Amino acid sequence: MSPEEKGSIERLVKRYLAAWSEPDRLARMALLAQVWRVDGIYTDPRSEAYGRSDLDELIAGFLGANPGASFNLNGPIDHHHDHIRFFWSLNLADGSEISGMDYGEISPDGRLVKIVGFF
Amino acid sequence: MSPEEKGSIERLVKRYLAAWSEPDRLARMALLAQVWRVDGIYTDPRSEAYGRSDLDELIAGFLGANPGASFNLNGPIDHHHDHIRFFWSLNLADGSEISGMDYGEISPDGRLVKIVGFF
Repeated sequence: MSPEEKGSIERLVKRYLAAWSEPDRLARMALLAQVWRVDGIYTDPRSEAYGRSDLDELIAGFLGANPGASFNLNGPIDHHHDHIRFFWSLNLADGSEISGMDYGEISPDGRLVKIVGFF
Repeated sequence: MSPEEKGSIERLVKRYLAAWSEPDRLARMALLAQVWRVDGIYTDPRSEAYGRSDLDELIAGFLGANPGASFNLNGPIDHHHDHIRFFWSLNLADGSEISGMDYGEISPDGRLVKIVGFF
């Protein structure tokens, strides 16, 4: 993998996590438009979202219930073919931290088309 | 998740890892027929296989180059929706050990239809 490719995947994942941390709907939609394909599918143990606007609503609900929450990338991103794996931490406003891992697939247009989260 | 469902997923993954550890082609094909959908897709950082017989050939090549290698499940299997994640160790005949993680998808017929490995 070239350094450029590695850098672009890291930017993609960081913007994706920034979207999950962005309470302002317009700013979040701008991030999601960059990183999430319009028909992308999100799944984690508690929820699922089919398509970009559904994911936006899921994040809005999450941040509404957890104001001040932020997601951060933990460690390097593993990447082969169109598949990625990365670890993250969720920092809640009360100071607690939750760790998790996402598996993802990148579409040919450079956006995420699937995320499956485990925590 | 019911205890029965949990048990059946553990059996599935253990049989899948047993297939990766089985040098006898007929025994391996019998395992793969139980656990791998005929059109299942396998990908790891070094290789890929499209369909059950392609996966069988990939394993045959791997075990031919690494006689005595065996894969073992490490820890519990995470599971939600039709998605699983599990950690494994590969024990080589020279006593060395490699660790890795697989993401997988289970088809409605109870077989694996996708594995993406990271190591």
